[in-house]
Amino acid sequence: MHHHRDHEGAQKLYDFIKDVKICMMTTIEPDGTLHSRPMYNQEADEAGELWFFTYLQSPKTTEVSKDNHVNLAYANPDKQHYVSVSGRAEIVRDKQKIEEKWTEGLRTWFPKGKDDPQVALIRVHPERGEYWDSPSSTMLHLYGYVKASVTGEPPKEMTEQKKVDLGG
Amino acid sequence: MHHHRDHEGAQKLYDFIKDVKICMMTTIEPDGTLHSRPMYNQEADEAGELWFFTYLQSPKTTEVSKDNHVNLAYANPDKQHYVSVSGRAEIVRDKQKIEEKWTEGLRTWFPKGKDDPQVALIRVHPERGEYWDSPSSTMLHLYGYVKASVTGEPPKEMTEQKKVDLGG
Repeated sequence: MHHHRDHEGAQKLYDFIKDVKICMMTTIEPDGTLHSRPMYNQEADEAGELWFFTYLQSPKTTEVSKDNHVNLAYANPDKQHYVSVSGRAEIVRDKQKIEEKWTEGLRTWFPKGKDDPQVALIRVHPERGEYWDSPSSTMLHLYGYVKASVTGEPPKEMTEQKKVDLGG
Repeated sequence: MHHHRDHEGAQKLYDFIKDVKICMMTTIEPDGTLHSRPMYNQEADEAGELWFFTYLQSPKTTEVSKDNHVNLAYANPDKQHYVSVSGRAEIVRDKQKIEEKWTEGLRTWFPKGKDDPQVALIRVHPERGEYWDSPSSTMLHLYGYVKASVTGEPPKEMTEQKKVDLGG
């Protein structure tokens, strides 16, 4: 097992993610409905965690508070790259973290800026990642993350588990 | 209420879908994990239902048999169009339907062709659709489909329900 930065496959997954400005985040509503919406995609942090800005009163904030399973889908049609990240979401209200992650490009969605008390972060802990090099590829590359320890430390490593048929 | 073909907003949603060759289909695994994969996107049928080819032994077939909630996410980064469709999936093994929906382009994923006994269809009954004209739009357009009747007739109409903040 290696840190994901040293792992060729995981690095490729994060490289694919980095190229996609907007991903689709799927959450589960209390009635079981799967709901997705475009989210501005920031680069993963050093621990491989994925961060997004949100309003505290948004439906997705409520949804992840009730069931924190999320899926992040990244599509790059020009390069024919597709990524799925299955993970757990957490709402982060820490002002220092909001300050750290804020970029002025976000003002399009959050016109009042980072000091708006309704602005918060969603941190996604990836549990599993898959990518497809091209839609015509019959292979996908599946990576499992080492689960976070009970201390709440974020997952830092992942290993390649298997390759399976895209159709399968 | 109008048939979706006559409904400007719904028409736009289906137009956006038509432009996206590959969408991401999210399903729920038995342990609650949300899992997505790229799927070749065929044009919606007259009833507004969405059809995909699959192998019968694929994980998604198992997943939708246990919980048929799915989300379809369509991303068109060049045009900045994003669509979310929440719906219910059904596995269709009807040979005549497979014949009708088959196109030779699918041979990339299904090299044995439409007569392979492992080839089947996934029909998605949309229950709700949303689209975003651009990621910088603060508005989304949310459409609710009229639910299928108890006779199993597919949903044929939908109405605009509301517009809400993208951030909200």
